[in-house]
Amino acid sequence: MIELTLIGIGTGNPEHMTLQAIRALNRVDLVLIPKKGPRKGDLAGLRRAICEEMLTDPAVEIAEFDLPVRDAKNPSYKDGVDDWHDAIADVWTGTILSHLGRRGKVALLVWGDPSLYDSTLRIAERVQNQIEMTVQVIPGITSMQALTATHAIPVNEIGAPFTVTTGRNLRDHGWPEGVDTLIIMLDGECSFQAIDPQGVHIWWSAYAGMANEIALSGPLSEAADTIIETRAKAREEHGWIMDIYLLRRDTKAET
Amino acid sequence: MIELTLIGIGTGNPEHMTLQAIRALNRVDLVLIPKKGPRKGDLAGLRRAICEEMLTDPAVEIAEFDLPVRDAKNPSYKDGVDDWHDAIADVWTGTILSHLGRRGKVALLVWGDPSLYDSTLRIAERVQNQIEMTVQVIPGITSMQALTATHAIPVNEIGAPFTVTTGRNLRDHGWPEGVDTLIIMLDGECSFQAIDPQGVHIWWSAYAGMANEIALSGPLSEAADTIIETRAKAREEHGWIMDIYLLRRDTKAET
Ligand SMILES: C[S@@+](CC[C@H](N)C(=O)[O-])C[C@H]1O[C@@H](n2cnc3c(N)ncnc32)[C@H](O)[C@@H]1O
Ligand SMILES: C[S@@+](CC[C@H](N)C(=O)[O-])C[C@H]1O[C@@H](n2cnc3c(N)ncnc32)[C@H](O)[C@@H]1O
Repeated sequence: MIELTLIGIGTGNPEHMTLQAIRALNRVDLVLIPKKGPRKGDLAGLRRAICEEMLTDPAVEIAEFDLPVRDAKNPSYKDGVDDWHDAIADVWTGTILSHLGRRGKVALLVWGDPSLYDSTLRIAERVQNQIEMTVQVIPGITSMQALTATHAIPVNEIGAPFTVTTGRNLRDHGWPEGVDTLIIMLDGECSFQAIDPQGVHIWWSAYAGMANEIALSGPLSEAADTIIETRAKAREEHGWIMDIYLLRRDTKAET
Repeated sequence: MIELTLIGIGTGNPEHMTLQAIRALNRVDLVLIPKKGPRKGDLAGLRRAICEEMLTDPAVEIAEFDLPVRDAKNPSYKDGVDDWHDAIADVWTGTILSHLGRRGKVALLVWGDPSLYDSTLRIAERVQNQIEMTVQVIPGITSMQALTATHAIPVNEIGAPFTVTTGRNLRDHGWPEGVDTLIIMLDGECSFQAIDPQGVHIWWSAYAGMANEIALSGPLSEAADTIIETRAKAREEHGWIMDIYLLRRDTKAET
């Protein structure tokens, strides 16, 4: 039996690692790490740095693998992603079988928390169709929490709900009913431009938790342009960017 | 100047502590800890255990304080909470002034993450009206993540939004529009009973992340009674309970 542990590593600060995550890492036989791609270099590097610093058991083996590339030309986005997940599952299966056979403990380091907008759990399910394998999850600090920590703000108003969603959903469906607080992730297009800024405050952070974090906040009507510019510049400078923001609607402003 | 650090400690497993949290704890002059109340004994105990295990700098002082009791008789819930937060802020201010005067570093250990349904940030704001003080936040593992980790499930469906809310909101307003996934917190009344269970799946966890964690899941129509019974029994046994759950509506079931 293979025992797979998905370890949440936080959002780029190696000190986001929990004691539980470090212990889990040192308990496996094999760690799977995607090889550095041409872009997003810093992300692949972090996993390797964490292993170098926190892997104290010399018996643990590290296997790097080439992450298959998603076929962006597939006319159906969903089928494209499906095929891509299948391809990744095949690579994991192959790497596990060649290193461990059908018995042993494997870890995968997952950005942030494995539950949040991440496909690792779904890919693991596909591997389970091929090998007998259990899946265990170790929680990690999410980019939501890195965002609110930097700005030292609560995510919710007292007793009030909040919705976590994507830039695409905000653009396509507007501000959802019944909530005054939104967390927006997976947004390549500064989708806050799609909503009426009146009475809305934004707290924005790029590279949250990392040494080069950039944090901006203010009334959306005033902050939007600065964020758009800052984001474009940072993206060009680093070659990649990850950003997240909280939008809060002032309910009093409506009356 | 006083520098206050709110440290997220996770949800009851001392190994939820991040390296950043441990480092922050060892960098202060003073840690404020609420004294063990008559109930919720385990919660106060955890903070003390974390200090005992992870505080390696002997120069750090620990100050225990009596947490004021909320006046449940105040006819306005909001005013009652307001007064209570004022009273807590006064106790913090007094304790800080008597131990450090107006200069030094103070830490408070916050359950889970300081951003999520927690009043510490709001109380700290009131202290800032009385002392010159900066506030910094160290993120911690939330009960949401402890829940999804235990069940090894994603919180969102691919690219889809989710809403985090309270038991009261679910009872008062029903299932919110536009989302098929809910996380319910602060629910003393198994409020999932208020919704139509048809096509809804529940993942429930009490004492998530702790040694005595109880996790149950299944179609809501089948699991509801077991959860209600299990919760009542566990609460009686331990004298207190904290539980959280994820509800997912099967969109296909509607058509
Ligand atoms: C594929 S999702 C993974 C989320 C991750 N599992 C988590 O727990 O945060 C990637 C999105 O998360 C957000 N994100 C992740 N890390 C971030 C960081 N360090 N700073 C800002 N946003 C981040 C961005 O919105 C990005 O588009
Ligand atoms: C006042 S809120 C604090 C939440 C905390 N700041 C966090 O990050 O999880 C308390 C609520 O959090 C949830 N909760 C906190 N710890 C929990 C645990 N160990 N197991 C289950 N639920 C928990 C419950 O819904 C509880 O009513």
